[in-house]
This record gives sequence, C-alpha cells and structure tokens, in this order.
Amino acid sequence: MKQVISAVCIHCGHEVEATPTITTCPKCGGILDIKYDYKWISAHVTRETLERRSDRTMWRFREFLPVEGTARRPRLRVGGSPLYDCQNLADRLGIRKLYVKDDGVNPTASLKDRASAMAVVKAEEARADTIACSSTGNAASSLAGNAAAAGFRTYIFVPSRAPKGKVSQLMIFGANVISVKGSYEDTFRLSAEAIDRWGWYNRNAAINPYLMEGKKTVALEIAEQLNWNMTDYVAISVGDGCTISGVWKGFTDLYAAGLIDKLPRLISVQAEGCCPLNRAIQTDTAWEPMEENTIADSIAVGVPRNPDKALRAIRESNGICVNVSDEEILAAMRLLGRTCGVFGEPAGVTGTAGVKKAVELGLIPSDATVTSVVTGNGLKDTANAIAAAGEPIAIAPDMDLLLEAFRKTGGPQ
Amino acid sequence: MKQVISAVCIHCGHEVEATPTITTCPKCGGILDIKYDYKWISAHVTRETLERRSDRTMWRFREFLPVEGTARRPRLRVGGSPLYDCQNLADRLGIRKLYVKDDGVNPTASLKDRASAMAVVKAEEARADTIACSSTGNAASSLAGNAAAAGFRTYIFVPSRAPKGKVSQLMIFGANVISVKGSYEDTFRLSAEAIDRWGWYNRNAAINPYLMEGKKTVALEIAEQLNWNMTDYVAISVGDGCTISGVWKGFTDLYAAGLIDKLPRLISVQAEGCCPLNRAIQTDTAWEPMEENTIADSIAVGVPRNPDKALRAIRESNGICVNVSDEEILAAMRLLGRTCGVFGEPAGVTGTAGVKKAVELGLIPSDATVTSVVTGNGLKDTANAIAAAGEPIAIAPDMDLLLEAFRKTGGPQ
Repeated sequence: MKQVISAVCIHCGHEVEATPTITTCPKCGGILDIKYDYKWISAHVTRETLERRSDRTMWRFREFLPVEGTARRPRLRVGGSPLYDCQNLADRLGIRKLYVKDDGVNPTASLKDRASAMAVVKAEEARADTIACSSTGNAASSLAGNAAAAGFRTYIFVPSRAPKGKVSQLMIFGANVISVKGSYEDTFRLSAEAIDRWGWYNRNAAINPYLMEGKKTVALEIAEQLNWNMTDYVAISVGDGCTISGVWKGFTDLYAAGLIDKLPRLISVQAEGCCPLNRAIQTDTAWEPMEENTIADSIAVGVPRNPDKALRAIRESNGICVNVSDEEILAAMRLLGRTCGVFGEPAGVTGTAGVKKAVELGLIPSDATVTSVVTGNGLKDTANAIAAAGEPIAIAPDMDLLLEAFRKTGGPQ
Repeated sequence: MKQVISAVCIHCGHEVEATPTITTCPKCGGILDIKYDYKWISAHVTRETLERRSDRTMWRFREFLPVEGTARRPRLRVGGSPLYDCQNLADRLGIRKLYVKDDGVNPTASLKDRASAMAVVKAEEARADTIACSSTGNAASSLAGNAAAAGFRTYIFVPSRAPKGKVSQLMIFGANVISVKGSYEDTFRLSAEAIDRWGWYNRNAAINPYLMEGKKTVALEIAEQLNWNMTDYVAISVGDGCTISGVWKGFTDLYAAGLIDKLPRLISVQAEGCCPLNRAIQTDTAWEPMEENTIADSIAVGVPRNPDKALRAIRESNGICVNVSDEEILAAMRLLGRTCGVFGEPAGVTGTAGVKKAVELGLIPSDATVTSVVTGNGLKDTANAIAAAGEPIAIAPDMDLLLEAFRKTGGPQ
C-alpha cells in the first residue's frame, strides 16, 4: 500500500507498521491512527479521476483507503448513499441550505456498514476465519451481514437493550450472538476478553484503527456530492466517538490531498442523557463516564471507547457541541420523515435534531449551510417510530365510519 | 412524450391518449397498458448511451418511461439497487448461477418505491396535491415517503394485519393512515370509494397504468447489470400481479428495442396459502379468489387486482409456477441472510424460496442461470425474522457464563 506510511499512536506518537492485525499501541495502549502519504495520493487521484470512475461504492476512493488492490471474497455494496438537498427543511429550520446524507440505505441499513466492509477486507488480508465485535447494535448487524456475504464466521456481543430490529438482523445473518445483560461497557469488556481468549479478528471500532478509515468514506462522498464545495457545518450524532473521528479524518484527508479548500466545522450532537464527550468540551474538563439514559440506543455510550480522537476532531474543526433531549430526537424523526421522506432511527436523526437546536440557541447563523448525516434506518427501531408519530386511524371497512373518523381528526368531508 | 403512443386496454383493445390521470378503460373498465414506439426508443438509446450515463437511479432509463423531461419537485433516489452474484447459494441450490437483486435498499426499503416514484411524477403532471392508495404495506410506505419528499398530501389505506415496521414508516412520513379491519380486498374497496369521493390522485397499482412502468425499471436494471446477457430464469414473488407484470414489461421492452436478444422465463412464486394466480395456470382454469393464509403479508392477496396482465406475463414467458409454504419462506430468509448477507422480508424472499423448490421439484435444470428479486427489506417485519432465525444467547457479563453457554451450544472452549 503505497498510500499508507504507518500507524501512529495518537497518545504517545509511537509509529508501527500498518499490518492487517494491528490493534492498539504496543508501547502505551493508545489508539492508533493510519498515516497516509498525501503527496502520493494527490499525484494519483484528482477530482477528474473520480468523475470518470463508475464504481459508486465506498471503494471508489481506494487511494484514500488502507487496502491492497482488490479483495477476492464476495462483498455487499456499501456506500454511495444519497445526499438530498432539503430546501424545505432548511427553510423551516431557518438556515440557508440543508443537505441530508441518508446512510440508512446501506445494505444492513446503517453507516456502520462502511466500517464492517473494511473489517472484512482486513480480516481477509489477515487470513482470519472468524471476526468478533461488541456493539450497541449497528456495528453488530453490519458486521454480521458483511461477514456472511464474504463467508466469515462471527461472534457478536450486544447489550440486552439492543432493539429487536437489530437483533433480528444478527440472527438472520447467522451470527453467533451473545446478548449481555448489562451496559455497553460490560458488553465491550466481555467481548474483549473473548477476543483475547480465542484470537478472533477484532472489529471493535475503537481498537481496530482500520474501521475509522471505512467510516471516513461518508465524508469523502459528501464532499464529492457537494461538488467539492463544502458546507459550513457537518452535523453528526456521537456515541463512542469513532464515527465523528472518521468523518473528520475524511475531510482532513481531502484537504491534505488538495481536493477541498475549506474544512467544515463539526456539530457534535449527543443525547442529554448521555453526553460525556460534549460535556468535556462544554466544561473544558476531562471527560467523565455518564449513565446511558436515552432512547437513541446507538449513541447511548456512557464510557466512550474513542474519546481522544473524537475530542481532537471536534476541537480541531472549531466544532460546536449540542445536546438534545429524547423528545427533540423524536421530533426530528417526524421532521425528517415529513419534509424529506427520510426515516432515521433515533440516533440516526440526532444530528438533525442538533442542527435544529443549534439554530434555536443561536449557535449557527441563518446564512449557514449544513450537511446532516442520518446514520441509521428507522426500520431498525419501529417502537420508537410509533412513539414519535403515533398510531393510525383504525376502522372497519365502511365509508360512514371513515367519514366519522375524518370528522374527529379534521379530515375531508 | 415521443416514446409513448397511447394507452391500450388489455381486455378490449380500445386505445386512449396517455394523459397523466387515466385509470381504467373508459369502454369496458379493463386495465390499460402503456404502448411505446420502440423504433423511436431504439433510435434514441443504445447500450453505449446507457453506459455513458452517470444517473444510477431508475430515471436512467428515461426513454423507456412515460414521463416528460424532468420533474421539478424534490424526490428520493429510487432504483440502482445492487445485483449480487451469489455463487455460494447457487452451489447450495444446485444451479449454475444465481444473481440476487436486493431491492430492499431502496429509500423506503422495497421495490414499490419504483412505482411510487412514478406516481409522484405523474401526480405532479396532473397538478394534483393529494395522492391515495390501498396497499398491503409496501406500496403504502413507499407512496408516503416519496410523496413526503415531493410535498404531496397522502391518504393511505392498509389492512390491519400490516406489520408494525410498515405502519411506523407511514406515520413517520406524515401520511393520513386508515388501518382497515378486514382483508386486502375490503381495504382496496374502501380506498376506491374514498378516491372517487374526494378526487385524489390514484396510486392503486392495478388501476393506474403508470405504476407498472415504474416497476419495470427493476428488469431494465437487471438486464444492464448482467451486461445484457439475460439469465435463463427470473424468479419473483407474486401477490396482486402488478410486479411480475411490470418485470415482464421491462424485459419485453428491452427485447423490442433490441437491447437484449433473449427473454428469460419467469418463475412466478406464490405462498401455498394464497396462490390464486399460480393455481389458475397450474390447473388451466380461470382464477378464483382464495383465503389469505400466509406470513408473507405483501403477497397475501386473495383477490388479485391485476390477474390478466400477470397471467399473460407468465404464459408469454413460458413461465413456471411454484407455491411455497410459510416454512419454506422462513428457511429462505435464513438462507439468503447466511449465504449472501441479504435480509429480505417474507414476501421479499419468496422468489428465492421458489427457486429452491423449483430445483427440488426438477422444474429447472442444474445448468440453469437464475435471477431472483428480493422485493422488500427484512427490517419491515422483524417478528417473522425472529421466528425464522431464533433468539440470541442471553447471559450476564461473565466469562464463566459465556463458557457454559458455549458448552451447551457447541461453541468454542
């Protein structure tokens, strides 16, 4: 891989060779970050190269990714999700432009497919036959699906609160699933012990430095879909910190390679009931664990596994932190559905809820342009969708009953 | 629209002008079919034209579609779903090639988005502001989503048995939803009465001839993704008959325009508990209504609304009819998940269940090549996914408990 120089510890700066099986820093245990040769990249890929390329998956950006040529196992088509220009919603929120990136149309219906597709390719390079992870749900189902297509065995640890939709995906994809009666932190620890014991390929995003490289493709796509004219802000929901770090890595990669000339400011959105990273920035103190009190299960992470990279990303981008209530999250589900036709899960729409709140708090100006990433499909958690949007009119098949129901609800007569 | 000549009644042959609001034949009430000028089409689009086109949505095939230039309302990105070469599964089924078209990654997670996207464009041409339909679920949720993005009001009638996932989509997209305590037939009738009364734009697929034209884009895509080398067979689940008719229309359009030189044989798959169309062909008699006894809610249609077109399509293609049990449908959910990483809803995988059964019954030879369309995402019906695939291991976060659970289930030690 000529584009990759090494893996660098973000804590102590120690550099190691970027082999497929690296996890954390052998010296200090810190999280590694893949270091690229941007001169090589900018010599090998331009806006025009990309424009001529017919591959619309995340692998379209292969010069920016830590992979050798082509992998041989079959794989799901990940990435290439739509970016919608939602003028309607921008007008309602009182900003100039709002673009919504719907990553819920990925094969297993979340942004995490980008990381899992990368995990599968690296596990193949490592000649592993089993991949394992712990996850609040989406990393799990994406690993299960991407690994099944490629013929890997999987062991997956989820907290017992994971919504049914996500668990059903795991089971259908044939994963060996362990539902852990405890928090995400308990789940993570048990998975780490099991991975150690059995030597499985590790797909825990805060341990395996390659996964963030998969996630960053969402940023690469956004930039290209915006025709390289970046919006002022990019809003995203934040749980254990890996996704926002990946998004920032994507934008800084493009900037370093000369494909964009302006970096967006990040809007880091967490749930009020679980916002350890935003709280650290807002109070300018070290982050502290929090309870996991939110319906947005994918970002209910009281002990974030990737705090350093996430905090660095928010700070470097001169970012904004916004915390939203569960009610604001449910309202954002309705808002995105009704104005854009996009159905996101609670954590999926938390970024958009944060944009709305940031406008209300005066944190972003009315001439701002914003991209909001919807990270997961609302079908994963239909119970909360019903909570957000209510139940339909239920009647027997009779026009008089319909007229009566319409009379009560203000329908036509 | 230079490509469109007229709309022809498939019952009496009467021709009418293809205006945006046509429904059924004004003479006999028969279903209309859009008639194209294939000379014009073949003069204006070739394989090479398409190859140079960057639009990957269903509108990529605009010369084959009954629409004027470009519509102005915002719309969801429909079509362009992946076609997977599933050699693993082909080997297991005992056929030469199996391609799986995953239409569950559409914006509202089913093939019906293709019809609803068309409905929205035609409703815009008709200057309507409200669109209505009845549906077993997917047509409904796709209409709700596509209409919301484009700013239309919707009234949607679903039978009360529609799964939660689909109903939750409707509510999030802000549709006015009427859940009818009765069969699909009861639901259809109430919707027809309401559409008549209030003059809403009609998105009932068996009434509005344009919707099939949207559905046919799945066939156009399959042909192009196969590099115009058609498989011997194309398998699809069948409910009210509109989708299989649309698929056949797509292939015959391509054949008439000279883009493919071989037509596939259709494999029409219905649920044993509700197979009025297949039964008509198998017994060579007129079709008769049936009960709606199957978990595959999307194709549980006892009184198909489009029997004539569907039966004609199956016969013209020298097609095969296969009926599968609910157990075979659940098994196909597991099979597609575990070997291909594709998660389909029950009706979504019914086509694949039919391929398996057709091989077992000796209806298709072992050197056959087959394309199977997965018409809807499994996340729409997680209860049946759990029924198909079971529950995970549930334990407290403790390695000894994990070891014990693995001992019982044959896991590693």
